Amino acid sequence: MGFSLFILIVTIATSVASPIHLLMPHSGSAGLKHADLNCLSWRLAVETDNLKGWSHIPESCVDYVGHYMLGKQYREDCDLVAAEAYEYAKGLNLTGDGKDVWVFDIDETTLSNIPYYARDDVAFGFIPYNSTKFNQWVAEATAPAIPGSLKLYEQLIELGFKVVFLTGSREYLTEPRSRNLKAVGYTQWEKLILKGDNYQGNAVEYKSGKRKELEEAGYRIRGNMGDQWSDLIGTNTGDRTFKVPDPMYYIG
Amino acid sequence: MGFSLFILIVTIATSVASPIHLLMPHSGSAGLKHADLNCLSWRLAVETDNLKGWSHIPESCVDYVGHYMLGKQYREDCDLVAAEAYEYAKGLNLTGDGKDVWVFDIDETTLSNIPYYARDDVAFGFIPYNSTKFNQWVAEATAPAIPGSLKLYEQLIELGFKVVFLTGSREYLTEPRSRNLKAVGYTQWEKLILKGDNYQGNAVEYKSGKRKELEEAGYRIRGNMGDQWSDLIGTNTGDRTFKVPDPMYYIG
Repeated sequence: MGFSLFILIVTIATSVASPIHLLMPHSGSAGLKHADLNCLSWRLAVETDNLKGWSHIPESCVDYVGHYMLGKQYREDCDLVAAEAYEYAKGLNLTGDGKDVWVFDIDETTLSNIPYYARDDVAFGFIPYNSTKFNQWVAEATAPAIPGSLKLYEQLIELGFKVVFLTGSREYLTEPRSRNLKAVGYTQWEKLILKGDNYQGNAVEYKSGKRKELEEAGYRIRGNMGDQWSDLIGTNTGDRTFKVPDPMYYIG
Repeated sequence: MGFSLFILIVTIATSVASPIHLLMPHSGSAGLKHADLNCLSWRLAVETDNLKGWSHIPESCVDYVGHYMLGKQYREDCDLVAAEAYEYAKGLNLTGDGKDVWVFDIDETTLSNIPYYARDDVAFGFIPYNSTKFNQWVAEATAPAIPGSLKLYEQLIELGFKVVFLTGSREYLTEPRSRNLKAVGYTQWEKLILKGDNYQGNAVEYKSGKRKELEEAGYRIRGNMGDQWSDLIGTNTGDRTFKVPDPMYYIG
C-alpha cells in the first residue's frame, strides 16, 4: 500500500510528460507574471506562509511544480515530516483513556490529489480552483494515500492514539471520502469531520471551531497535521503542528 | 552597498571551497546520523518549523548548507521574501503619526553572519553554538547586510514606516551592533532593542515581551520579520510576519 503513490507517480510522469511542457503557451493571459521568478524561492515562500491569498501557481512555475510533485523530492519531503512527527509522538505519554487524538487534514495530507492536479485542465494549480470539477474528482473516491502519512497513521494507531480526520470537504461527500480513506489503508478513525454543506466561515474559523469542539468533548489534541497553514493556526491548534508540503494551492 | 554580500560570497566561496569538503571526516562523533537524509527535505522541515530544538545541522548536510548559503539560491530566497513584504507594506495606509512600525530581527534577517558561519570552527552550524566565539564576532561589527532586507528597509523608510530592530544580542553589545548596522546602510531607527545582560527568559518570551511594550507605548506593529520562528510567534506578533530563511541554527 505504501508504494501505491510511487507507482502512480511513475505512471503519471510517463503519461503526462508532454502535456506538462505543452500546457503553457507563454502567450500571457491570466496568472502572475514574473519573467525571472525563482520557482524554488516561490515554493519556499509558500511553504513558510510568506505568500498568502494566491489563487493559482505562477505560470512560469507550472513545469517546476509538476516535476516536483511527480518526483521523489515531494515524496521525501512528506516522508521527513512524517518521520519527525513519529519521533515526537513516540515521546509522548498517553493516558490510555482514549482521549489522546491526532488530527489529520485529508487533501494533500493523508490523500493525494496528484491524479487530479496533473490533468491538463488543472495544470498543477495554474488553472484556478474549480470546486465543481474538484468535488467530482473527490466523489470518485480514487485518491491514493500519501505514503509517509499512511505509515505515520499506522504508527500512531499502534502507539494508542485516536485519529480524527478534519477536512474542508462538504458533508455531502462523507460516503466517498470514507470509502476512499478505507480503500487505501486508513481503516479506522475516532471521528471523520466534514464541513457543513451550508457553512460560510473561512478555513481557519471552521477548523478552529471543530478543534474547539473536540477539546470541549474532552479530547486532547496531541498532534495536528495539515498541508495548509489554515489547518495549523487559529485556536485550539494542538500541542504541536506539522506542515506537510503543498505548492499547488492555497486555502486561507 | 547591496552588492557587498554578493562580493563577499564570491570571496568566501573561493577561499573556503576546500574546507567545506574537508570539514567532515565522516568518522562519526557528534551530530545527527542519517545516512540517507535528504538535505533539501531537512531544510524544508526546518523552514516550516517542523523540526524544533535542534542543536546543530546534520553532519551529512554540511556541504549542502554551505553551498546553499554561499550560492545564489539563498540570496534569491531572501529577495523574494523582501519583495513580498514590500508588496504588502505598499498596500497599507499609514496614519502619519509615526507609530506604524516594522520590526526587524538582526542576525540572518538584516545582517548576515555568513563570514562567521563559513569558518572551519563553525562549519555552517555543524559545530554547536558557542556564545563566547559568536559574541566576539558580533563585537567586530563587520557583518554585511542581507541585500534584500536592506532594500526593503530603505523602501519601508521611504513609505513612512518607523523601524525597530529587536535582537537577542545582549545589551553590552549595543555599540558594535549599532555601528555595524550603520556601516552597512541601516542608518536610522526608532528603537534598537537588545536583550538585558541578565535576562533569563527564552526567545519567544523575550521578543513577545518587547513587542508588547512597543504596543503599550502606542506603536502599531504592521510587519515583523525574522529568520527564526521564535521571532514570529508568541504574543503581539504584529499584523503580518515574514520568515527569512536560515538553515544554520535554531533558537527556540
